[in-house]
Amino acid sequence: MNDKDIINKKINNEVLTYKEIQYMINSYIKGKINDKVMSEFIMLIYKNGLSYEETYFLTDIMVKSGQIVDLSSIKKPIVDKHSTGGVGDKITLIVSPIVAAAGVCVPKMSGRGLGLTGGTVDKLESISGYKLNLTKEEFISALKKVGCAVISQSEKIAVADKKIYALRNEIGAVDSIPLIASSIMSKKIASGSDVIIIDLKVGSGAFMKSTRDATKLAKTMIKIGEYYNKKVICTLSDMNFPLGFNIGNALEVKEVIDFFNGKYDKRLYDLSVYISTLMISNSKKISMQKARALVINLLENNFAKYKFYEWIKYQGGDITKINDKSKKHIVISDKTGYINAIDASLLSQLVFDLGAGRKTKNSKIDYAVGVVLNKSIGDKVKKGEILGTIYYNKKVQDMEKVFKNTFKINPKKIRAKKIIFKTIK
Amino acid sequence: MNDKDIINKKINNEVLTYKEIQYMINSYIKGKINDKVMSEFIMLIYKNGLSYEETYFLTDIMVKSGQIVDLSSIKKPIVDKHSTGGVGDKITLIVSPIVAAAGVCVPKMSGRGLGLTGGTVDKLESISGYKLNLTKEEFISALKKVGCAVISQSEKIAVADKKIYALRNEIGAVDSIPLIASSIMSKKIASGSDVIIIDLKVGSGAFMKSTRDATKLAKTMIKIGEYYNKKVICTLSDMNFPLGFNIGNALEVKEVIDFFNGKYDKRLYDLSVYISTLMISNSKKISMQKARALVINLLENNFAKYKFYEWIKYQGGDITKINDKSKKHIVISDKTGYINAIDASLLSQLVFDLGAGRKTKNSKIDYAVGVVLNKSIGDKVKKGEILGTIYYNKKVQDMEKVFKNTFKINPKKIRAKKIIFKTIK
Repeated sequence: MNDKDIINKKINNEVLTYKEIQYMINSYIKGKINDKVMSEFIMLIYKNGLSYEETYFLTDIMVKSGQIVDLSSIKKPIVDKHSTGGVGDKITLIVSPIVAAAGVCVPKMSGRGLGLTGGTVDKLESISGYKLNLTKEEFISALKKVGCAVISQSEKIAVADKKIYALRNEIGAVDSIPLIASSIMSKKIASGSDVIIIDLKVGSGAFMKSTRDATKLAKTMIKIGEYYNKKVICTLSDMNFPLGFNIGNALEVKEVIDFFNGKYDKRLYDLSVYISTLMISNSKKISMQKARALVINLLENNFAKYKFYEWIKYQGGDITKINDKSKKHIVISDKTGYINAIDASLLSQLVFDLGAGRKTKNSKIDYAVGVVLNKSIGDKVKKGEILGTIYYNKKVQDMEKVFKNTFKINPKKIRAKKIIFKTIK
Repeated sequence: MNDKDIINKKINNEVLTYKEIQYMINSYIKGKINDKVMSEFIMLIYKNGLSYEETYFLTDIMVKSGQIVDLSSIKKPIVDKHSTGGVGDKITLIVSPIVAAAGVCVPKMSGRGLGLTGGTVDKLESISGYKLNLTKEEFISALKKVGCAVISQSEKIAVADKKIYALRNEIGAVDSIPLIASSIMSKKIASGSDVIIIDLKVGSGAFMKSTRDATKLAKTMIKIGEYYNKKVICTLSDMNFPLGFNIGNALEVKEVIDFFNGKYDKRLYDLSVYISTLMISNSKKISMQKARALVINLLENNFAKYKFYEWIKYQGGDITKINDKSKKHIVISDKTGYINAIDASLLSQLVFDLGAGRKTKNSKIDYAVGVVLNKSIGDKVKKGEILGTIYYNKKVQDMEKVFKNTFKINPKKIRAKKIIFKTIK
C-alpha cells in the first residue's frame, strides 16, 4: 500500500477501503506523509466527495486516533449537545442545567475553537474561578453529582482530526460536507454519549449558508451515527441574525442569568426550550409534548436556575464575580422604523475587533467586551431611542457606525421568521 | 437494505459493505432476523470466506454491540494475553504475576467458555474466596495496586459475539478462520489493551490442527489489530501433548504453586518464560534478550512468586484453602520404554468425564478432580513405575485403562519437539 496508488484511486473517483484511508491518515499523523501529499488527498476529497461508508471510515479512523471517554459508569440517560457555532450562541449554558434538572446527564466537552466571538469555554472562563480542566474522574464525579458539566475538550480526543482540521483551514478545504461531518462526529463519538443533538446553524452568520447544504450535512452525520448505533438528531436553526441580545463572553453569561430570571429574547427562549425538549425527549424516551411540559415547569419553578448555580459553583466558579470591566458606549438610533434585519456576520466582526474572539490558538481574549442589542428582529425603534450598547476597552475605528450599519431599519414591519427551520432524525 | 439482497450478494461472492454486515448482525441481535436466516448468512461466510476488510467490519460491529473497557487511567504499559485453549494450559496463572512483577499491567478477562477441562476462571474458582466478579472500578484498582487481575468476562462485552458464537456451535460453523478471528478479536479489542499476545495452540488437543491454518488465523488477527492501531503477536505452540503435569482445576493451581517453587515440567517452563518475555518486550519496548533476563531474574528471586500470592490475596483468595477433596487412584505402568506421545485429546475427555469441565453453561464443575502425570514426553518409564494419578470423586468406567491408553510408550527414545513452533507479528 502506498500514497500514490491511493491518491490515483481517488483521482479516478474509485471507492477507497478502510485500510487505504487509514493508511493515509495514520501515515500523516506519524509524519510519513508530508503536508503536500496530504493536501492533495484532502483536496481530492473536497472535490470528489466521499460516500457515506467512506465518510464513516474517515470518522472512525479519527476516533481511533485518540482516546474515547467512557461514561458507562453513569446510570442516568446521557445526551450530548453540539452547536455548529453562531453569533450570540449561549444555548449550551442554558440547556445544560435545564436538561440536568430533568434527571438527564449532560457531559459537554467544548473545543477552544477559533471563532469571531469566543466559544462556550471562553464564556465560562469569564466567570471567576470556573475550572475548565477537570480530570476524567472529576468530570465523571461532577456528572454524577450535578448532572451537567462543561469542560474544555481534551487534546487526546480525535487527535488526527486536529491536524487535518488545521490543514483544511490552511488549504481552504473547509466547506466540504464529508470533511465537516467526519470532523464533528469524530469528536462527538469519542465523547461517549448515546444520543447526540446537533444545533446546525444556517444563515449568513453561520458556516452553512443554505438549508440545502445543511440538510445534506445533517443526513451525513445521522448516517455516521448509525454506524455506531448512536442516535443523532439535527435541528436546523436560523443564524441570519444573532441569537439573543448579548454578544461577548461575560455579556453572554449575564444574559444567561437574565434568562433564568425570566428576562429573555423570544428567539433565544424558543430555541433553548426546543433544544432542551429534544434532548430530554430522546434520552428519557418520552414524548416531545411531555418533555416540553417538563422544561417549562423546570424554568417556571426555578429548578433550572438553581441547577445552573449549582453547576457553576461545583466547577469552582463564583457567579457574582464576572470578568466584566469595560467602558460603555451607548448607541442611539438616528432612524425610525422596524428592525428588518441585524447582520450577524458584521456584528461578530465588530465584537471580534473589540477583542472578544481569538485569531490564533494562543491569542488572549478580553472577556468583558462585546455588544448588547436593545432591540430584536421585528421590533419598532424610534429616532433617539437606544439601539444598543458597545462594551469596549480599546476603541475600534468607526465602531458606532459599524454597529448602526448592522441594523436594517425599514418603515415596513416584517414578521420575524421562526428560529427553528426543521429537525432531521 | 434487506436481508435477502445481502444474502444474495454473499451467494454471488460479492464484497459486503460495513453497513450491510452491520444490518445483518444488528437485526439478528434485535430479533428482526431469525436464526434460520442468520444461519444461512453465517454458513455463506463459512463457505465463501471474508476479506480482511470484511472480517474487520464483522469484528468492529461485534465490538460496538457491547461495552468497551477503558484502561486509559492506568499509566503503566498494558498487555493482554489470550490462549486459544489447550489441555493443561495454566499459562495465564503463571505469566500474569511474572509480567506484573516486571512493572507491566496485565488486565485479564476470561470467558467462562465451554471446554473439556475448565477455563482459567474455573481454575481460580477452586481457590477458596477468590472473587471473579469485580466491578469495573475494583478491576482498575486491582490493576493499579497489584499489576495483574483476572476476572470473569463481563456479559456486556461484545454482546453480538455471544449470540453468533452459540449459533455457530449449533450449526457447525466453528472452524472458519474469519469467524474465529472476529470472535476472538472482538473480545480482545473491547478489553482495552494496546498490545495483545495470543498463544495459538496447534495440534490434536487444540481446535487448530495444522500449522498452516493456525498461520492463516494468526495473520487475520494481526490484520484486524492493525485496523485498531493495536499490536497483535501470535505464538503458535504445540498442543499435541498436554501442557505440564496436572490437568484439572485445583490440580493446575497446585502445579502453578509448584512452578513458582522451582518444580516444573520443562515444556511448561519454556512456554511460560517465552510468553512472559514476549509480553514484557512488546509492552515495555525492550529487546527480547533483556526481557528474558528480567523474567529469569523475577523467577529466580521469587518476585514473581510473591506477586502471585499478592494477586490471589488481593482478589480475596486463600491459597492455603484449595477445593481439592477427592480420592486418588495411582496408575502403574505395565510397559518399559520411552514416552513418545501423550494423547491430549483422549486425556481431556477422561478429565471431562471425571467432572472437571462443563457441558452446558450451567453445569457444575468438580474442582478437585483430574489427573497428574508422573512422566513427560521423552521420559523413560519402567514397568511397575508410577505413570500418574487419577483424582476422582465418582469413578469413570475403565478409567485406568483409558489413562494408560493415552500414553504411547515405545522402546525408541524420541527427542521432544520444541513447544514453540513460531511467532508471527
